[in-house]
Amino acid sequence: MSDVPTQAPLLSVAQITELIDAHFPHMTGRGKYMVIEAAGGRQSRTRLRLNERNLRPGGTISGPAMFSLADFGIWVAIIAEIGERGIGAVTTNLNINFLAKPEARDILAHTKLVKLGKRLAVGEIEIYLEGGSDMVAHATSTYSLPPK
Amino acid sequence: MSDVPTQAPLLSVAQITELIDAHFPHMTGRGKYMVIEAAGGRQSRTRLRLNERNLRPGGTISGPAMFSLADFGIWVAIIAEIGERGIGAVTTNLNINFLAKPEARDILAHTKLVKLGKRLAVGEIEIYLEGGSDMVAHATSTYSLPPK
Amino acid sequence: MSDVPTQAPLLSVAQITELIDAHFPHMTGRGKYMVIEAAGGRQSRTRLRLNERNLRPGGTISGPAMFSLADFGIWVAIIAEIGERGIGAVTTNLNINFLAKPEARDILAHTKLVKLGKRLAVGEIEIYLEGGSDMVAHATSTYSLPPK
Amino acid sequence: MSDVPTQAPLLSVAQITELIDAHFPHMTGRGKYMVIEAAGGRQSRTRLRLNERNLRPGGTISGPAMFSLADFGIWVAIIAEIGERGIGAVTTNLNINFLAKPEARDILAHTKLVKLGKRLAVGEIEIYLEGGSDMVAHATSTYSLPPK
Repeated sequence: MSDVPTQAPLLSVAQITELIDAHFPHMTGRGKYMVIEAAGGRQSRTRLRLNERNLRPGGTISGPAMFSLADFGIWVAIIAEIGERGIGAVTTNLNINFLAKPEARDILAHTKLVKLGKRLAVGEIEIYLEGGSDMVAHATSTYSLPPK
Repeated sequence: MSDVPTQAPLLSVAQITELIDAHFPHMTGRGKYMVIEAAGGRQSRTRLRLNERNLRPGGTISGPAMFSLADFGIWVAIIAEIGERGIGAVTTNLNINFLAKPEARDILAHTKLVKLGKRLAVGEIEIYLEGGSDMVAHATSTYSLPPK
Repeated sequence: MSDVPTQAPLLSVAQITELIDAHFPHMTGRGKYMVIEAAGGRQSRTRLRLNERNLRPGGTISGPAMFSLADFGIWVAIIAEIGERGIGAVTTNLNINFLAKPEARDILAHTKLVKLGKRLAVGEIEIYLEGGSDMVAHATSTYSLPPK
Repeated sequence: MSDVPTQAPLLSVAQITELIDAHFPHMTGRGKYMVIEAAGGRQSRTRLRLNERNLRPGGTISGPAMFSLADFGIWVAIIAEIGERGIGAVTTNLNINFLAKPEARDILAHTKLVKLGKRLAVGEIEIYLEGGSDMVAHATSTYSLPPK
């Protein structure tokens, strides 16, 4: 995350994880499924751990699993920026392109907010296989933000 | 499904369900999660049964659950049209707009193929709550078809 | 437009055309380019007249021309519903699938609003060649509405 | 364009411009509208010159103009990579998010191909105002490539 501005994020990774676990424990499975690895500077890096639920026959990661990780990545980047209010942000649009069939490994999402307005945030998400350099999916998503 | 052409679909609902259960039993949970209600005439109607996995705190259906149903709906419409070869079709793009927070009930997808070419199929999917008339999500999706 | 509710639209086709010509005369070319054929009931039918500006070598309609017509169609459907305030609505997202190369003829957009909320409207747009029954493009679009 | 691989592009900017002018002179207006500034390494940088056709009342750049530039940017990146065959590539999908109303200035598109397969290419396009650092639009697009 080379372009991260120097301004400190409103919340640390540990604080965001705690907030999400308090409100939506099913989402991260308390670290069993989703993990926040970095957040701040209008970006986030999130991981979906390999688990049976996300596998398809033939040993590939399912489309809904990649969708979930993309959706999670932008949400985390928003919460890091605007704090607890971001918990109530909701997805209004998500567009995802599947680029390659990913083998059965952890997948990582690199998310960058390209807009953070008063009412709407827009993010761009690149998804990679753990240890791989080719992108396996690319998404953009719009969130509606709760009023201040 | 008022506009269904009179031509019979290549496969019946029972045959499509059997094919999918044979190849991807996790997807439908053998009827526990996903159910095909109608297919043919470049359309399908599919149902996602209410289940704990798909709920969010506050009693709404999760975004990934709606994504999964949309993705399933177009796949079923393709298989009805081109037969077993359609099992190998893969999602290349899915764009979804979330229109309202759905209460905890079954959701239904009405899918219509707007293109069925040699290499690509494009579908439009409307998602409704069981018993409701307002759309809760709208999606479009492109599938890449395996060669004949 | 079979599903049009019986409630009268807020503005007639003539009134919408007049409003648009007053604010954005370049868009319709005062009927030379874009024509509103019907509006109301959360729907619209709009036409892009064949003109040199919209042609590509080989005699097909350009992608930007189809984009423009889709964008226009949803805007007209919004104005019909919410009146002059709709003139200030702005596109936040437009997703378009090109399904076939259209020959050099007028093209028609059939637009349906799938959501009309306080802040956002979402529409689905089908584009056909004049006199043809196959869809040549399909779009969905989100508009941000000005406050009341 | 910091991540450009060191491999030389198949075609230079001058060669791509010449090819496009030979096949689609209306598109660039022979440099009056669209200009290719850099291409290669699966990327491109393209410019839309300010011109009356692209302006909206109030002095903003029109949505279709931004769409056209995004569509042009990915096409140029493809041609640089696969050569003259890329001239026949066609847009199958374009999804664009409008992030801010751009003032009346030149706009620049930074395009990156995130996939270049046998049949499909997918690109991500960031659009900026000349001299500005905020993104005004963000797009992703899929092109269908002609057979070898």
